[in-house]
Amino acid sequence: MRNLDENTITQAVIERNEKIQDDRLRHVMASLVQHLHTFARDVQLTEKEWEKGIEFLTAVGQICTPTRQEFILLSDTLGLSTLVTAQNHKKPENCTEATVFGPFHVADVPMVDLGADISNGMKGVPFYVKGTVRGVDGEPIPNATIEAWHADEDGFYDVQDPNLIGCKGRAVMQADSNGAYHFKTIMPECYPIPHDGPVGKMLEAFKRHPWRPAHLHFMLSAPGYERLVTHIFREGSNYLESDAVFGVRSSLVCDWVHHESGVTPYGEQTGKPFVTTEYNFILNREKN
Amino acid sequence: MRNLDENTITQAVIERNEKIQDDRLRHVMASLVQHLHTFARDVQLTEKEWEKGIEFLTAVGQICTPTRQEFILLSDTLGLSTLVTAQNHKKPENCTEATVFGPFHVADVPMVDLGADISNGMKGVPFYVKGTVRGVDGEPIPNATIEAWHADEDGFYDVQDPNLIGCKGRAVMQADSNGAYHFKTIMPECYPIPHDGPVGKMLEAFKRHPWRPAHLHFMLSAPGYERLVTHIFREGSNYLESDAVFGVRSSLVCDWVHHESGVTPYGEQTGKPFVTTEYNFILNREKN
Repeated sequence: MRNLDENTITQAVIERNEKIQDDRLRHVMASLVQHLHTFARDVQLTEKEWEKGIEFLTAVGQICTPTRQEFILLSDTLGLSTLVTAQNHKKPENCTEATVFGPFHVADVPMVDLGADISNGMKGVPFYVKGTVRGVDGEPIPNATIEAWHADEDGFYDVQDPNLIGCKGRAVMQADSNGAYHFKTIMPECYPIPHDGPVGKMLEAFKRHPWRPAHLHFMLSAPGYERLVTHIFREGSNYLESDAVFGVRSSLVCDWVHHESGVTPYGEQTGKPFVTTEYNFILNREKN
Repeated sequence: MRNLDENTITQAVIERNEKIQDDRLRHVMASLVQHLHTFARDVQLTEKEWEKGIEFLTAVGQICTPTRQEFILLSDTLGLSTLVTAQNHKKPENCTEATVFGPFHVADVPMVDLGADISNGMKGVPFYVKGTVRGVDGEPIPNATIEAWHADEDGFYDVQDPNLIGCKGRAVMQADSNGAYHFKTIMPECYPIPHDGPVGKMLEAFKRHPWRPAHLHFMLSAPGYERLVTHIFREGSNYLESDAVFGVRSSLVCDWVHHESGVTPYGEQTGKPFVTTEYNFILNREKN
């Protein structure tokens, strides 16, 4: 296997990978090599451009930390995340749609009771969220596990604070025996995805803004149902038509109702503004 | 721009990138997005596989340091480096062929005189290298700049030694007024590319060996000529037919002649073994 040129190299790499025992992995790698090489041939990639690409990917990797995932940002801003989400969630029409996972999920978040204030001191206007978790036939899903996470009024997640102790604006809870859930927090605002790193530089070079419309992340799961990773978006938010990560789905946009003052959903009288919303999730049955 | 699915997302990203002002960059990005997305659709990439991919690329980036370039290793082992080298060096048939750059080049290496011992104490059998640098019409290229770098008898480059001070087995020199060069060093042996990181794990999972045949790297340049990045390989070395990075070209394989003892090219009588080789480079004229 000598003297490979820009055309013969592709088959040579695929043949070298033929000892991969897992059929699926071998297939994925053959397709990856094929498309990577075809890209480089189609654009006649130069050595300088290849070097720039190596430098860029290295910088993306180097800025990653346990709480910063720049490769997910890259996947999000290149539309790969939306593509992968879309093609893996074909389901009945009345099911709640999935959207991108994003880089701010945290594992092992503590469980709280329904009705808890999950903001844990985060800054923003009080926000009361409620709804139900049901299956496609309308059946309530008792005790469904609901994880929520969101930014604050300045657009930052808790994990972006280097001095963070504990969780803010994120929690896991369980729906009640009728599949109902409710919690209090603060209202997340629009925010730019972290743009002080290589992906931010890329967006700037591409004359693209880094902003996302206001949203609240959810991950829902229950035995016998497909896990759902999604957001709810605020109707009327900026950037609904130009989300930096291509994640908006009309069915996930809902009214976040502003109240100047009055009685909160938990029966407290307040002279200050608060916001309420309701979103009812429908989970797909797990595939066998 | 809402409700994008696995098919409509591609055009949406390309349109979002249309404000890129540099025509070439816009073209490269459109092709990259197209091929990245087509790959994900063709194999119906799952979310778990996407996650694995994110984790792998992150690990590749995290292990990079100023002296370790894991993304180049990845490019090399996926054949991308050979592809890019091949398509960027179309030239007259008698020119010396290029091959991969590799991850062990170092910038700003000190200049030495012709005849210097560039091993600087590296372990191995004494190795005497000489030849000429000429143009396609046979004209000598006086004072051509010649950079050489290579591994030691254990297969390690100097930069792989965490305690390294100065350069070993690498130097820059200038050909004489007739385009001739010669230097002394030690003979590099076959070695496995660094395989204690993610790329090594990948090769292991793919049942591929990480070895390269014995070789010496060269980078040659001179005003009016195309820069040449290449190796010379040892005839008879292991792995000439299965180089882990697909870099072997028959025209770059030459005899490394073993001498049990005798008079070295520099006129010293020795009772110990030494090795000699000669390689004559031909550089292409610079394109206007």
